[in-house]
Amino acid sequence: MERDPGVAVLRLGHRPGRDNRMTTHVGLTARALGADRAILAGRASAPKETIEDITDRFGGPFEVELTDEPGRVLREWSGPVVHLTMYGLPIQDVEDSIRADHGPEPVLAVVGAGKVPFDVYELADYNVGVTNQPHSEVAGLAVFLDRFFEGAELDREWTDATHRVVPKATGKQVEPIEDD
Amino acid sequence: MERDPGVAVLRLGHRPGRDNRMTTHVGLTARALGADRAILAGRASAPKETIEDITDRFGGPFEVELTDEPGRVLREWSGPVVHLTMYGLPIQDVEDSIRADHGPEPVLAVVGAGKVPFDVYELADYNVGVTNQPHSEVAGLAVFLDRFFEGAELDREWTDATHRVVPKATGKQVEPIEDD
Repeated sequence: MERDPGVAVLRLGHRPGRDNRMTTHVGLTARALGADRAILAGRASAPKETIEDITDRFGGPFEVELTDEPGRVLREWSGPVVHLTMYGLPIQDVEDSIRADHGPEPVLAVVGAGKVPFDVYELADYNVGVTNQPHSEVAGLAVFLDRFFEGAELDREWTDATHRVVPKATGKQVEPIEDD
Repeated sequence: MERDPGVAVLRLGHRPGRDNRMTTHVGLTARALGADRAILAGRASAPKETIEDITDRFGGPFEVELTDEPGRVLREWSGPVVHLTMYGLPIQDVEDSIRADHGPEPVLAVVGAGKVPFDVYELADYNVGVTNQPHSEVAGLAVFLDRFFEGAELDREWTDATHRVVPKATGKQVEPIEDD
């Protein structure tokens, strides 16, 4: 979202094939709920392509990149690093601190697939639990973003879309957007 | 969650194998974020088993059931039916109405996998979009539940758990719960 502070989402531990759908959902959730950018660790070219296709159709700005060095991304990130984990501190207790703590640098929200290496817990400025129950990295990311942006992400305007959904009480309406 | 109004989650369109992980995430998200019950349409015994294993370990109450007649569940539901769909009305515009509208009957939150039959749109009392962007039924459900319960679900107490996570700023701590 083009407002301060921006959020990038780092997806760790992607396993090609097996995790394609979950990683795609992580990236699409990041895009839909106000993040600017998804960084996918590992051979995640299939999810990257799907997320870019959606951005081409429904708008951006939203960037997707792959990395073979997620540890370096974590270590070199200049803004706050927020690792979403069921073992972390309750989001309702730390969300205000996270918002207050950031300067002009974007937040990096980190979500794993399966077991996350221990150094991620140590490199994170905040280990945050959206509940301390096992559920879904997609759900944790969604609640984190909605709370971080305090709902403002739902009013985001999209640019360079070719199509848009017209909200309806019943049924489906998608309309093309004509370039001026 | 043991407070009014309860929420049940109906998962439509499960394809065995292919959707196991997504359906499991839907069910675990429902449990973690305050719903009482998940109803899984189709041959979803593998997700059912995983969700029940988590409930046995980390607590309930939470029920999981399978149905071959999701249309009947929808038609016979006595409380409000909320279908989460990218084509629906913005959640920020309708969440207050949904809360105000329910009586003592639980809400049924409906999420699809892939294409949802058109009669679901017609049977729903509310078609609700968590954004009008394509992303994830897990993310949509998570944001819906967090908003519906206004965050109270994060303070839920769990019963009959054998283990609990102790929230930590860094690292992981899971402790057994001893029965008295």
